[in-house]
Amino acid sequence: MPLLIDSINQTMKKGEIFFSFEFFPPKTEAGVINLFHRFDRMGELDPLFIDVTWSAGGSTAGKKNQTLQIVKESQHYCCIPTNMHLTCNTSTKEEIREILKQAKENGIRNILALRGDPPTENIKLSEDFKHAVDLVKFIRAEFGKYFCISVAGYPYGHPDCPDRAMDIKHLKEKVDAGADFVISQLFFEADDFLKWVEDCRAIGIKCPIIPGILPIQGYQSLRNITKMCSIPVPDYITKAILPIKDNDEAIKEFGIKFAVEMCQKLIKSGTPGLHFYTLNQETATIRILKELDLVKPKFQTRELPWKRAAIDKRCKEDVRPIYWSNRAKSYLSRTEVWDEYPNGRWGDSRSPAFGDLSDYHIFIHQPKYAKKDLKKLWGENPKTPEEIGSIFVSFLEGKIDKLPWIDSGLSSETNLIRQELIKINRAGFWTINSQPRVNGAPSTDADVGWGGNDGLVYQKAYLEFFTSPEKFKIFLEVVQKFGNRINYQAANMKEYPYISNLDVAMAVTWGVFPGKQVIQPTITDPESFRVWKEEAFRLWVSKWADIYDNGTDSNKLIHEIHDNYFLVNIVDNNFVNGNIFDVLNEVMKTIQERADSDYNPENDVQAHFSWSYGDNAENHC
Amino acid sequence: MPLLIDSINQTMKKGEIFFSFEFFPPKTEAGVINLFHRFDRMGELDPLFIDVTWSAGGSTAGKKNQTLQIVKESQHYCCIPTNMHLTCNTSTKEEIREILKQAKENGIRNILALRGDPPTENIKLSEDFKHAVDLVKFIRAEFGKYFCISVAGYPYGHPDCPDRAMDIKHLKEKVDAGADFVISQLFFEADDFLKWVEDCRAIGIKCPIIPGILPIQGYQSLRNITKMCSIPVPDYITKAILPIKDNDEAIKEFGIKFAVEMCQKLIKSGTPGLHFYTLNQETATIRILKELDLVKPKFQTRELPWKRAAIDKRCKEDVRPIYWSNRAKSYLSRTEVWDEYPNGRWGDSRSPAFGDLSDYHIFIHQPKYAKKDLKKLWGENPKTPEEIGSIFVSFLEGKIDKLPWIDSGLSSETNLIRQELIKINRAGFWTINSQPRVNGAPSTDADVGWGGNDGLVYQKAYLEFFTSPEKFKIFLEVVQKFGNRINYQAANMKEYPYISNLDVAMAVTWGVFPGKQVIQPTITDPESFRVWKEEAFRLWVSKWADIYDNGTDSNKLIHEIHDNYFLVNIVDNNFVNGNIFDVLNEVMKTIQERADSDYNPENDVQAHFSWSYGDNAENHC
Repeated sequence: MPLLIDSINQTMKKGEIFFSFEFFPPKTEAGVINLFHRFDRMGELDPLFIDVTWSAGGSTAGKKNQTLQIVKESQHYCCIPTNMHLTCNTSTKEEIREILKQAKENGIRNILALRGDPPTENIKLSEDFKHAVDLVKFIRAEFGKYFCISVAGYPYGHPDCPDRAMDIKHLKEKVDAGADFVISQLFFEADDFLKWVEDCRAIGIKCPIIPGILPIQGYQSLRNITKMCSIPVPDYITKAILPIKDNDEAIKEFGIKFAVEMCQKLIKSGTPGLHFYTLNQETATIRILKELDLVKPKFQTRELPWKRAAIDKRCKEDVRPIYWSNRAKSYLSRTEVWDEYPNGRWGDSRSPAFGDLSDYHIFIHQPKYAKKDLKKLWGENPKTPEEIGSIFVSFLEGKIDKLPWIDSGLSSETNLIRQELIKINRAGFWTINSQPRVNGAPSTDADVGWGGNDGLVYQKAYLEFFTSPEKFKIFLEVVQKFGNRINYQAANMKEYPYISNLDVAMAVTWGVFPGKQVIQPTITDPESFRVWKEEAFRLWVSKWADIYDNGTDSNKLIHEIHDNYFLVNIVDNNFVNGNIFDVLNEVMKTIQERADSDYNPENDVQAHFSWSYGDNAENHC
Repeated sequence: MPLLIDSINQTMKKGEIFFSFEFFPPKTEAGVINLFHRFDRMGELDPLFIDVTWSAGGSTAGKKNQTLQIVKESQHYCCIPTNMHLTCNTSTKEEIREILKQAKENGIRNILALRGDPPTENIKLSEDFKHAVDLVKFIRAEFGKYFCISVAGYPYGHPDCPDRAMDIKHLKEKVDAGADFVISQLFFEADDFLKWVEDCRAIGIKCPIIPGILPIQGYQSLRNITKMCSIPVPDYITKAILPIKDNDEAIKEFGIKFAVEMCQKLIKSGTPGLHFYTLNQETATIRILKELDLVKPKFQTRELPWKRAAIDKRCKEDVRPIYWSNRAKSYLSRTEVWDEYPNGRWGDSRSPAFGDLSDYHIFIHQPKYAKKDLKKLWGENPKTPEEIGSIFVSFLEGKIDKLPWIDSGLSSETNLIRQELIKINRAGFWTINSQPRVNGAPSTDADVGWGGNDGLVYQKAYLEFFTSPEKFKIFLEVVQKFGNRINYQAANMKEYPYISNLDVAMAVTWGVFPGKQVIQPTITDPESFRVWKEEAFRLWVSKWADIYDNGTDSNKLIHEIHDNYFLVNIVDNNFVNGNIFDVLNEVMKTIQERADSDYNPENDVQAHFSWSYGDNAENHC
């Protein structure tokens, strides 16, 4: 991951305005889970970074160094570069050194160095660190240039040093000691900020200074914050919100309008970016960004079809199996301990074993939706496979936004083949992953583009679905007729751990760009499919069956599906003009023909499997 | 490299007929050079393997183990799997062990184990090896399954054991001792061979038995060979050729017709392949193969756009820089000592340094064409750059078949853009390498296909040329306008060692196949270009200037070109519908416009270079 100062400089060079979000560690575990979901959603807006304020103790259930934990996971799982606040006024050198060592070990490279508020309880003040500048010096002395250090600046002076001129001198000391950029305390008058920046420049502070923006979200919170920070609230604001002080919605609207106008002034004056004090809220900040027209079209943010974790050790990773594309965090978790990440030579560098699936080993992995909420999504009391199938159809129709295998809603490229998907799901082929074929679309295409400008991107069509043994049997018959146009992989939890006509890793997404090798970021491959299918089947039980009580029909039904159904994927190698649904249309036709005749496939399911398995066993099983 | 027995089994499984060629080590160095050129030409026919008969002493100027040397180089440089004959009847175990060790070290994996003819001079017979079977046993005992062992079979019995039944028993002993397949001694009656095979099968010899075919090439040679081998020549053959015994052409014609008929019988009877005793001649054997319709269209033989060396340690190599595509042996020589060969991740695995260019370190690299022959090709007495340029044009027009940078004639894909190439060569852009753009041609395309069936292949158009400093200056101006559509690299032997807008390796040829990653066998890259350009410039002097005496105008002219001209290559990233000649057309237009105006580019060549160089220096120099 680049140091934030490098990202800031690059953005400034391009003449773009960046934005960033500040959050604080929630007090409850549920709050933390929600926060990570917020990171995911707000991460989609492509902030340059997020900040997490410092909380050393465990406000959440016994977690030590909670901020460090959150920053680590936001970088690894939410893939957002994160700036970790660190206060020093109650810590010893040993303690700070230990925290920074842990930060380094966990891929954290950006620190906002703060003194910290005076302790409210009877905690002793540090003798090692009197001021933030001591922390800046310590970090540079102990860790050299490893960390990017930011510091806070106070347009109205620090509460403990209201002499503005003196306070600016303190800021200069922090910068001279090695701080890379400055984030300002909140303010309500653009002119106050701009004048202050002018004064900072006048005494020789040359690094970027980022304005901190507080979207006003409520009367009481505004009062608390401004009091805590000793920030003057202009009269006209007080006058404007006093009459609506009990109407949160109206205050928020005011806050948005107010912030937009202030930000416009700042942008006009050449600010490199905007830092938002979100108060862990997203609506107001997002509204402001949209009004400022700073939310870019999503495709511009896709460096690869999937999002890279924001840590150094994964920075060369550029290949992943397609199976986890709807469960990226699970993939990141399973591969967290790898020493080396695949980059363009998947077969050879994927030597380390996949980690076990553990939905529990980190707290963000298991958002604890209430069973009753999940029942609303996936059925109160399903009794037949058809009812289960209807849930998959509902998902494709946009009526529900989650499936056990899909963390987020429909992707825009799924939309391109939605009608065909609905048709096969209705026929009993329950899709959990898919991509349409793409034959040289511009790399800037809104639905399927990635990798920047001037490239062409390609995809082989992909479908992954669960289906019953009876239907799978027909599928296996039919797919042979397609020869090597279609690559397939399949497995159940019983006697068929792997049936396939694929021997090695195959690219299903690739891109051709000027001055580069062909980039192949998504593949299918036999080894990781074997790992994925265990996870995919397990989710039937852990995410779905378990919302119904043991012994109920619904619970039994889903266990039976888990025990008997097949997980199947197919790739259509004809990315130029093939239609991947040809295979399933042929399967459905065959099923229909057999139903119309006397043929009863149930009689020889086992016989047929033995044959098929045997036929494929030599190379593939 | 696969063991020959595996290749034979695969070919049999596919129901195809293979063929192989036997050669003997020539007596003179010139003969050896010619033989390697013959390997190259006959290798194009895609024989399953070639044989080289054993010559331990140096029939050629003091070379020890000449056969071993030839086999090593034919596998490495001519890229043909080679079966090494080895005789044992005058060697000790230590000597044989040493030879086999050397064979192993040099990537040789196939041995034809023979007793050897009785020594004609006063050489002591071996006490360790009385019969070929002793050698077979020794190889298996000492080297296990490392070598594929073939043995000779005698349809008429061995000269020293004319009892056919007894001789077949000896053959069975050799097979039982570990021989993988049998090559038969020559014969003139298909029925004799087939009856013999039948008898071999009857006593339990199960391995492949390959018939050895002698194309009759002359009266005297037939007499000598048949006498030496104690082979009966059927009366009707003697009767047919006696009347024409002094007409070699007529005998050859007879020999071809005769061999074709015999081979047709053998093929009909199910022979897996045909082994030709070529007597180091190519015409007759090639004629026979063509009449038998066994010469496949060339594209079927292309596994990759370039030919893999037939040795194990290079078997994973699947990426090469484009620069050496017309000088493959030079590339193989430079990279011979590498421990690891690039396979799909060029940038990382090309850690070892390129070997120095040495045209002399192995004897096959420097075919010693007489200066007078080269003058006929490249000019008796050229005095102007225009005369030099006309040689490049002549090459493209097919009037001469060699250039210092191009080992063999025009490739079929060059033909696709020949007219455009002639045009730019006439204008002073002397091309030494090129490929047309290809946007998803079938992998079986006769001109540009490779990699087998069912794939699509792609190429970015590529041009590499020498040009004068004046023209290069205009080129550099013009190419900037094309932005990153065009990647270019350039260098001269003076002040500009590298000017480029390419930072990393870029694929210029790739292919998409079912069940595989995207294969990228040809690339351009900054590092190997730096190595290549030294070689490319050096060839001006070592291959061209040196054919003229020192002090002559021609010699001076070429030295001046070497000292001043630029080597340039360009890649057009628009492989969908770009025309790479756009760039040079624009350059030629600009040159014309300047010539029509008062502008004199010579005045500020240096100034412009400095600017261009500076402008590109940051990233590329």
